[in-house]
Amino acid sequence: MSTAMSRAASAAARPGVTPPGAEPDAVRASLSARFEAVRAFTAALAEPLSAEDQLLQSMADASPTKWHLAHTSWFFDVFVLTPHLPGWAPPDPAFHYLYNSYYNAHGPQFHRPSRGLISRPSLAEVRAYRGAVEEAVRRLMTEASGARFAEIAPLIALGLHHEQQHQELICTDIKHALSVNPLDPAAYPAGRTAPAAPVPLRFLGLPGGLVEIGARAAASPADFSYDNEGPRHAVMLRPYALANRPVTNGEFLAFIEAGGYETASLWLSDGWAEVQREGRRHPLYWRRTEAGWAEFTLAGLATLDPDAPVCHLGFYEADAFASFSGARLPTEAEWEHAAAGTSVDGHFLSRPEGIHPRPAAPGEGLLQLFGDVWEWTGSAYLPYPGYRAAPGAVGEYNGKFMSGQMVLRGGACSTPEGHVRASYRNFFPPSARWQFSGLRLARDA
Amino acid sequence: MSTAMSRAASAAARPGVTPPGAEPDAVRASLSARFEAVRAFTAALAEPLSAEDQLLQSMADASPTKWHLAHTSWFFDVFVLTPHLPGWAPPDPAFHYLYNSYYNAHGPQFHRPSRGLISRPSLAEVRAYRGAVEEAVRRLMTEASGARFAEIAPLIALGLHHEQQHQELICTDIKHALSVNPLDPAAYPAGRTAPAAPVPLRFLGLPGGLVEIGARAAASPADFSYDNEGPRHAVMLRPYALANRPVTNGEFLAFIEAGGYETASLWLSDGWAEVQREGRRHPLYWRRTEAGWAEFTLAGLATLDPDAPVCHLGFYEADAFASFSGARLPTEAEWEHAAAGTSVDGHFLSRPEGIHPRPAAPGEGLLQLFGDVWEWTGSAYLPYPGYRAAPGAVGEYNGKFMSGQMVLRGGACSTPEGHVRASYRNFFPPSARWQFSGLRLARDA
Amino acid sequence: MSTAMSRAASAAARPGVTPPGAEPDAVRASLSARFEAVRAFTAALAEPLSAEDQLLQSMADASPTKWHLAHTSWFFDVFVLTPHLPGWAPPDPAFHYLYNSYYNAHGPQFHRPSRGLISRPSLAEVRAYRGAVEEAVRRLMTEASGARFAEIAPLIALGLHHEQQHQELICTDIKHALSVNPLDPAAYPAGRTAPAAPVPLRFLGLPGGLVEIGARAAASPADFSYDNEGPRHAVMLRPYALANRPVTNGEFLAFIEAGGYETASLWLSDGWAEVQREGRRHPLYWRRTEAGWAEFTLAGLATLDPDAPVCHLGFYEADAFASFSGARLPTEAEWEHAAAGTSVDGHFLSRPEGIHPRPAAPGEGLLQLFGDVWEWTGSAYLPYPGYRAAPGAVGEYNGKFMSGQMVLRGGACSTPEGHVRASYRNFFPPSARWQFSGLRLARDA
Amino acid sequence: MSTAMSRAASAAARPGVTPPGAEPDAVRASLSARFEAVRAFTAALAEPLSAEDQLLQSMADASPTKWHLAHTSWFFDVFVLTPHLPGWAPPDPAFHYLYNSYYNAHGPQFHRPSRGLISRPSLAEVRAYRGAVEEAVRRLMTEASGARFAEIAPLIALGLHHEQQHQELICTDIKHALSVNPLDPAAYPAGRTAPAAPVPLRFLGLPGGLVEIGARAAASPADFSYDNEGPRHAVMLRPYALANRPVTNGEFLAFIEAGGYETASLWLSDGWAEVQREGRRHPLYWRRTEAGWAEFTLAGLATLDPDAPVCHLGFYEADAFASFSGARLPTEAEWEHAAAGTSVDGHFLSRPEGIHPRPAAPGEGLLQLFGDVWEWTGSAYLPYPGYRAAPGAVGEYNGKFMSGQMVLRGGACSTPEGHVRASYRNFFPPSARWQFSGLRLARDA
Repeated sequence: MSTAMSRAASAAARPGVTPPGAEPDAVRASLSARFEAVRAFTAALAEPLSAEDQLLQSMADASPTKWHLAHTSWFFDVFVLTPHLPGWAPPDPAFHYLYNSYYNAHGPQFHRPSRGLISRPSLAEVRAYRGAVEEAVRRLMTEASGARFAEIAPLIALGLHHEQQHQELICTDIKHALSVNPLDPAAYPAGRTAPAAPVPLRFLGLPGGLVEIGARAAASPADFSYDNEGPRHAVMLRPYALANRPVTNGEFLAFIEAGGYETASLWLSDGWAEVQREGRRHPLYWRRTEAGWAEFTLAGLATLDPDAPVCHLGFYEADAFASFSGARLPTEAEWEHAAAGTSVDGHFLSRPEGIHPRPAAPGEGLLQLFGDVWEWTGSAYLPYPGYRAAPGAVGEYNGKFMSGQMVLRGGACSTPEGHVRASYRNFFPPSARWQFSGLRLARDA
Repeated sequence: MSTAMSRAASAAARPGVTPPGAEPDAVRASLSARFEAVRAFTAALAEPLSAEDQLLQSMADASPTKWHLAHTSWFFDVFVLTPHLPGWAPPDPAFHYLYNSYYNAHGPQFHRPSRGLISRPSLAEVRAYRGAVEEAVRRLMTEASGARFAEIAPLIALGLHHEQQHQELICTDIKHALSVNPLDPAAYPAGRTAPAAPVPLRFLGLPGGLVEIGARAAASPADFSYDNEGPRHAVMLRPYALANRPVTNGEFLAFIEAGGYETASLWLSDGWAEVQREGRRHPLYWRRTEAGWAEFTLAGLATLDPDAPVCHLGFYEADAFASFSGARLPTEAEWEHAAAGTSVDGHFLSRPEGIHPRPAAPGEGLLQLFGDVWEWTGSAYLPYPGYRAAPGAVGEYNGKFMSGQMVLRGGACSTPEGHVRASYRNFFPPSARWQFSGLRLARDA
Repeated sequence: MSTAMSRAASAAARPGVTPPGAEPDAVRASLSARFEAVRAFTAALAEPLSAEDQLLQSMADASPTKWHLAHTSWFFDVFVLTPHLPGWAPPDPAFHYLYNSYYNAHGPQFHRPSRGLISRPSLAEVRAYRGAVEEAVRRLMTEASGARFAEIAPLIALGLHHEQQHQELICTDIKHALSVNPLDPAAYPAGRTAPAAPVPLRFLGLPGGLVEIGARAAASPADFSYDNEGPRHAVMLRPYALANRPVTNGEFLAFIEAGGYETASLWLSDGWAEVQREGRRHPLYWRRTEAGWAEFTLAGLATLDPDAPVCHLGFYEADAFASFSGARLPTEAEWEHAAAGTSVDGHFLSRPEGIHPRPAAPGEGLLQLFGDVWEWTGSAYLPYPGYRAAPGAVGEYNGKFMSGQMVLRGGACSTPEGHVRASYRNFFPPSARWQFSGLRLARDA
Repeated sequence: MSTAMSRAASAAARPGVTPPGAEPDAVRASLSARFEAVRAFTAALAEPLSAEDQLLQSMADASPTKWHLAHTSWFFDVFVLTPHLPGWAPPDPAFHYLYNSYYNAHGPQFHRPSRGLISRPSLAEVRAYRGAVEEAVRRLMTEASGARFAEIAPLIALGLHHEQQHQELICTDIKHALSVNPLDPAAYPAGRTAPAAPVPLRFLGLPGGLVEIGARAAASPADFSYDNEGPRHAVMLRPYALANRPVTNGEFLAFIEAGGYETASLWLSDGWAEVQREGRRHPLYWRRTEAGWAEFTLAGLATLDPDAPVCHLGFYEADAFASFSGARLPTEAEWEHAAAGTSVDGHFLSRPEGIHPRPAAPGEGLLQLFGDVWEWTGSAYLPYPGYRAAPGAVGEYNGKFMSGQMVLRGGACSTPEGHVRASYRNFFPPSARWQFSGLRLARDA
């Protein structure tokens, strides 16, 4: 079974194939270094939060920080240690139940909306669990035979990418939880932004045609991609244009002031129903104060910066804004084709400070494609032609979520550095607003 | 404004362009004949139902027959008569509010889930409204100048296609309403089916490649299509195979008996949640009786025919069955490309009897592409490249529903004859099961 | 079993004991006359309503008129005919299921909120059911032996009182259903009210002391009372005062204008929560129009009469108004003790017209104790000391509802003439507002 | 205003009147000693719980321990210190909003179901708030003039009784919260119970008659009672009998095994609906394990003791059990009259251990009237004749809850020693089960 699992992980994770003449020790050293770095970064993210903060769960879609700490360890426990390290056992067998997120192949899961009610195991016990898992993985990486290492390496790599996704969720979930508190508490210190002249909006044309998108088969382990990013395939694009930067708070404010939230004709039918039902009048976290518009951030309440990308929009709001602008959302193929040549630079979650989108810096071409805010596309999250989910538990990673969600591209200020790429497909239901999600306009050319 | 509306209708409905040398009288005669035929068929569908039956509304998504009778008249009232026939007024101004479905540009709408509470206007008054509208449309068609007729003709054509959609909804909505009644009442007489040998399932390969789909610009008025069927555009298809016929009740029963509804790994995540939440264990209308499986039909309770296409599935059930079969759902492009050459023949709603899918008749090639059951595809209902909704109320016809729904193709035994075509895009949310919806399997070749 | 049922009916209904020397024929004739009168009145109430009207069910607590017609026949069918008339059978055995309201001892019941979905049996079929039941009851009353008659007489008497309760519900339920219709349709013609000078509010003192309330054991069949009205028992009352008439619309308007619905301190905690949750700002059926306050009545929309008793209040609104007035609601013992000597005169449902409360006519003493509006008391609906519900299905009539409801006294303009008495206990949950419910103020003396 | 508040507190709390010749210093010393004892006991109850435990809120009706710690301090802050101690201010003005429970006169309240989301202020900060409040109250008690002290003394006394109620809620709320955790954690050590022979059930007759109940005007400060316990008044009781002890687990098990939860005729209508809707099959916290029946306790999972009083029943279950037993619940007047002469001894919350009902010890008369389990009565929680709620915020203490709730009597193992008395009226909605609530049977004699 462990072989099947390993093969499934390869399928799900599309890790690089170790080239024939690779130096095994270097591979181990590199994976080991990455393991230490990713695990340490998770701990650093949680560090400024109290045990009480780390227990908060403010909605069913979000999870407590402590749960993220445990679940990212559970992943190594269940997929790596339990099948591959004889004698391994978690501190309590109930952990396998408590910290399973949604892997039905691994048995039932604790009631998701009640994760915030698990005061015990305590934070200290969860940290001890993390330590035990780390110690065991280190031992396994060191002592494994070459054959065994070849089996576990893709699983460990997958586990690290998985953990990076949860690093982002730690940010977005604690932001939501603290936003409920009328004291507007800060989780992290504010970042410093150098003032700059606003970048005017321009559309840049692209010719389209028969182009290829999707992650290609990896040539090396560094070329990791998720299974949902492939197979690489041809799509036919009409000529189109993309805005040079994401929509800003100032531009979105004009939509609000023009009555955008009260104008049915701008909205998709489901979006309009949501606006009525939920009484939506502005992006999540915006607040109308006596001193003008403010927004709740991970550093507490802050004045709204008109030049920063608008953030915490749902898909319907992004789509309505595009209609209002006489434009549309890009498709994910258009976005990826445009981004294909660009280096993955941007404002990411490099340190636990300044987790907030920043205004575009002056420049040519497509700015802020990566980092700052995820960009909603007009594409439903569906399998690419030829996609097949891997068998077994690892196969539940991506495939089973391919309905009812829309694709977002590019990463945000909450995304760990090095985690995204041009082919990366993030996905959320259209109503989700607690991610750092904004938009970039597109047009038919 | 009437000109804008007319232009919008042209855009929304993509009617045929009247060729330069067309004979106007023949065009009027043809439209008039079609008007009489469609209106009479609606009345004939409602005829066997009592005034009490016609008031039933068993869920928010369905409407009373009487409401359909009124709303299909409202459409001509509001889009054709009010702007184009001086002196026209409905029997009561409140009708414009009561019988508006979802056109925000025409003002607020009566609370949709309460349509079944409108005992007054009575059925007799609604019939009188129908008569008054018909009389006025006849007069307008006869007396309109050539220029005026050119304006109203596409609106009337759209109104008739619209009415045909509501003919189908009359069938599906009354079926749902009567299914709640423990007496299992019949709405229509049962059809007769000649027994035949079952048709074995086979897959037929198609080469794919860069193909065109979507409705092309119409060359004549007979070439009507909805705006959402265009623009015609190129898509790249991999080689694929389609099953020669839809999945049958017998095949679906095997899925049930193999524990399909209890096997999480076969289901999309949202589908699995729905199965748990709703306690789904079989298609809508199936009943386990002491004498074996039965299903509620428009002719009352009937024994389940193992050779007839399975019907009243939601998208998640269709998708889970495909997974169970080691296959998948076709994309709408694959379906349309395969159907492009086929003549639109099949078991449609030709008369108000026998509104139930029938087993495939023996034959070569792709059987039952049209009629019998709508076929769920794996495609989300999204705009085609270059699509723009028309401005104004008519523009609300299709575009605003382009989120959260999946495409179905091919028409059903509840679809009026002559209503569908290869490019026709029907769409429903994945949980909808009260349409005559089944599936055809597909595979990568 | 029929004997047990009969005994249970006696217990539940507390009918008069036939005195030793009663003339049997006269008893039969009297019961028979009453049977004909009550049944005919039900039919007359339904007569002005169309088959469509009679199918309406606008909330789970209300039922369609047609259902009331059937259920009041079901009562005789199941409690009288089935056990006592050999060979009797309803038109369809499903009627026993369809038209059972809440008698668990008679098996499961059709889903209550879906009663409005039973288009078949048609109204004509339900009328035929009524006719068949009536014919059979007539035959049974005529042909029964003396012993058999003694068994069925209390059941028939109970059935007639039961039917009178449903006559009231026909009025209140159709009023609610038609109120949803934006056309404001009328069910019945308006009554005529002679203008008169308003009656000033005065408080009349009563001494209290150790008094008896509750229905006493009946001395004759005419002394019918429900089981929940007894046993008669002593209660200790402090000196108190009652208002000479119910609170008027004009007085309630002053409460509204003084911000009563916005003042938390006037409300019980549950009532305040309800006001917030439901956005209550006035009694049910009141409407603020451009021409001033109006209210929906069974004769359509009407101008609010400031001198008529305020109606369609929930308990919480009645209680809040009393607090606002520096008064309180009377207890049911206080009310009954005050009413004990008064003759049961008032504005009742004598004919199907004028079903609307009328201003008090000038007079001395406690006015409008009976008729016009039910009066909320401050008493929870609980068993009297020594009360025991009868065994079997008839025992479900009253006893099982003795939680979560408040007592109302005195009958209303919707109550059939001859149905109420001083000891009569009506009961509804505090949130119910669709009955003709108002209040009379009380004070400690 | 402070005088009005003080008078209101007197009215709400019915404290003892200081007798003319009372020694002021002794009164201060006594109140001060009581203040120290109650506050210290609250801290001791919270002590074994971690900061994470103290943040748990598992349902809207329950609150986090930390919130209880803060709210019991808020009471002194807002009712005593703010009006009476110049210069006093809480650590953060937001505390007045965050820790207000339901006093509308003190402004809006933080969303009750979200109390578990307030990670900040931290537990340490809340403890500091407690300390600051205690220090200030001590200072005020010491330094207040005689007149000032006479004003604040009843408010402080009320605050201490209030705090004792929250001590009980700390127990019941943390029990509910920990019961959700699949690890079955213990909050407190288990108590030790000496085995004893079970006490057979007997009924003891009481003559009834015109008796007095309710708290009388207090003769000394030690005679504290809440406003809802008065006025003392006469009620007429029929002869009745009470069981010598509460119903036991073993007796309730017999009800379960006899199909009590499946027998509609035993239940009030609302109770039966609840049983169906919630799927109730046993008391809250009972679990069917492979080793037999167990129950979750504050000391973790424990074997069910058949001789201990059944606990964590809702009113409907208590009532259904009484019906099953051919008995009924006592009225609160019957209970109080029977208990009037008994000394208030029993198993109370004397120490933070053994918070679990214990079997009756052998004895004569009415056993376990006080302590172990609250006993549901058949009386709705309504005002006594002549009751008027005090004006202002303190008047919200009891009066506004007088609807929709049932009275419980006698205190439980979770009730602080010295808190209850014969006239004490506890009240909860009929569905509430997380209190230590059981029942004692009654009968008409």
